[in-house]
Amino acid sequence: MIYRRVALIGLGLIAGSIALAAKRRGLAREVVGTARTAETRATAARIGLVDRVTETAVEAVEGAELVILCVPVGAMEAVAREIGPKLAPGTVVSDVGSVKQAVTDAVAPHLPEGAVFIPAHPLAGTEHSGPESGFATLFENRFCVLTPHDAPRDEVARYRQFWEGMGANVDEMDPAHHDRVLAVTSHVPHLIAYTMVGVADDLRRVTNSEVIKYSAAGFRDFTRIAASDPTMWRDVFLNNTGATLEILGRFTEELFALQRAVRKGDGEHLHDYFTRTRAIRRGILEAGQDTDAPDFGRVKKD
Amino acid sequence: MIYRRVALIGLGLIAGSIALAAKRRGLAREVVGTARTAETRATAARIGLVDRVTETAVEAVEGAELVILCVPVGAMEAVAREIGPKLAPGTVVSDVGSVKQAVTDAVAPHLPEGAVFIPAHPLAGTEHSGPESGFATLFENRFCVLTPHDAPRDEVARYRQFWEGMGANVDEMDPAHHDRVLAVTSHVPHLIAYTMVGVADDLRRVTNSEVIKYSAAGFRDFTRIAASDPTMWRDVFLNNTGATLEILGRFTEELFALQRAVRKGDGEHLHDYFTRTRAIRRGILEAGQDTDAPDFGRVKKD
Ligand SMILES: NC(=O)c1ccc[n+]([C@@H]2O[C@H](COP(=O)([O-])OP(=O)(O)OC[C@H]3O[C@@H](n4cnc5c(N)ncnc54)[C@H](OP(=O)(O)O)[C@@H]3O)[C@@H](O)[C@H]2O)c1
Ligand SMILES: NC(=O)c1ccc[n+]([C@@H]2O[C@H](COP(=O)([O-])OP(=O)(O)OC[C@H]3O[C@@H](n4cnc5c(N)ncnc54)[C@H](OP(=O)(O)O)[C@@H]3O)[C@@H](O)[C@H]2O)c1
Repeated sequence: MIYRRVALIGLGLIAGSIALAAKRRGLAREVVGTARTAETRATAARIGLVDRVTETAVEAVEGAELVILCVPVGAMEAVAREIGPKLAPGTVVSDVGSVKQAVTDAVAPHLPEGAVFIPAHPLAGTEHSGPESGFATLFENRFCVLTPHDAPRDEVARYRQFWEGMGANVDEMDPAHHDRVLAVTSHVPHLIAYTMVGVADDLRRVTNSEVIKYSAAGFRDFTRIAASDPTMWRDVFLNNTGATLEILGRFTEELFALQRAVRKGDGEHLHDYFTRTRAIRRGILEAGQDTDAPDFGRVKKD
Repeated sequence: MIYRRVALIGLGLIAGSIALAAKRRGLAREVVGTARTAETRATAARIGLVDRVTETAVEAVEGAELVILCVPVGAMEAVAREIGPKLAPGTVVSDVGSVKQAVTDAVAPHLPEGAVFIPAHPLAGTEHSGPESGFATLFENRFCVLTPHDAPRDEVARYRQFWEGMGANVDEMDPAHHDRVLAVTSHVPHLIAYTMVGVADDLRRVTNSEVIKYSAAGFRDFTRIAASDPTMWRDVFLNNTGATLEILGRFTEELFALQRAVRKGDGEHLHDYFTRTRAIRRGILEAGQDTDAPDFGRVKKD
């Protein structure tokens, strides 16, 4: 047992997976949780997702050693403002938001002096959401990035253990750097996948049923991405604007160069480009970060 | 048995898979094959990929009832020019090129009067290539598009049986329409995946090792695509220029609109867009074209 009581604010995919993993691995004696709507709270209570469901966030954090904010990035500040005044000194506060600088800036000012703030981002998810989508193995063998800033080292070590106990590999990083890395490896890839699916959906000369039928040829995983929660992703882009726009700028620059090569019939440019990109794939395979079963970073239920 | 002798020109992923599937399913009494380099021919002979390896394409097509061109799209014309004069009347000639209009235009003029030309495109592949990458189940439950134009219906029906025998679902289409559909479902998605990987590889502020390490978060399947054969994909873009540029134009238009929404903080636009793209995913699931195991249209060896 690492924490006596853990409070989860929000009871969706990530909170549900934390609750199930923490209980299965014996990392918390009690897991308490709350969600915005009565419906989600009722579902969580019915399926026994947490030990206790409270009506409000303020009730949830009462007596908790660890509080994790598991709501969309854009909702973090309001939650922090609500619970801040009620947090006992020494409480560890964390979040699981996919953006770290904006969440840190939004949450930190509302926490009392004695609270220990350790933002986190587990690099694991599926395209499903809600209280029934969580599962205990979601974080196994996935990275979890902490951006602890100046939190006491012993508390950071303890919180690391919590994530490692759920099977994650934990790394520490500066929040701005996290946002830049994730813009490349996750945020912009998601935006272009959403775009590509939008284009397909718009076409009149190729029917939707054809797109659907022949989607096996490369497009299908884009549609999986484009089925992810709209609120979560809206908030990611609204809160990682700088890095997203920077990487998008690079992306369109490169795309235009390739487009020009296609238009001009410059096979050498295309061949060179396609040869160069092979190396990075080799690196990923060598780093043991992929198997023969691609999943676009998503995990299956066990 | 559907054909007595099948000749495969080219002995890579697709040809190898045809050879193995046709023999396993008893669709051809003899499969003969040839490749450009002595090395590939020697490998194919050593692993018994086909019944007989010939030195030249002309030798391979001698006495064949069905000849399938399994070389990159840009190499189809030269092969057709070489074998055309040697084809017996009634020989069925096909190809497996990922582009259909350009291949049809390049190959047809070189075929003799009595030959039956039925272009084909199996929508199946992996990122691997070469004579050792083929496997007998590659086409199972995948679509194979035929663009038979005015080929005799009985010969089309017979050739359909050949692909159905290998486990494929066969559809017929006009070649230009095929190219437009595939531009959306395969060619442009591949181009933007190549681009995204190129961008990541170029960045100096995010290291390659970080990109590799955290690639689980959405980017990884892009790298799989970007490991595909450079020659094959160069030829696809050089030969499906019109449809590629048309879809790319639509793509950048949509991307710019989303980029503007990110810059302006227009959450409503983003949320609406991300909500709309969910529907197409539902369609794909309902059409039975995906399971919980994404693979970017690629197939695993059994
Ligand atoms: N899904 C992923 O792939 C993934 C991966 C890593 C990190 N994350 C991050 O994890 C966080 C949660 O994501 P999730 O996938 O678990 O989402 P989810 O399944 O949609 O759950 C979100 C939870 O937040 C609550 N909520 C939503 N809006 C709220 C608001 N305005 N005020 C208070 N509560 C609100 C919801 O309550 P109701 O159900 O009552 O509406 C729900 O319980 C997000 O910050 C996301 O960026 C997600
Ligand atoms: N891979 C896929 O995902 C996929 C899917 C559907 C359709 N296709 C289409 O199938 C065709 C073959 O692809 P593949 O994946 O099987 O490729 P592959 O594994 O690279 O094999 C290509 C074969 O073509 C030969 N070849 C290459 N260049 C040639 C040239 N200039 N002249 C004569 N022969 C040449 C090669 O001979 P050497 O080995 O001796 O060089 C090799 O035997 C392409 O038209 C492609 O568009 C591919």
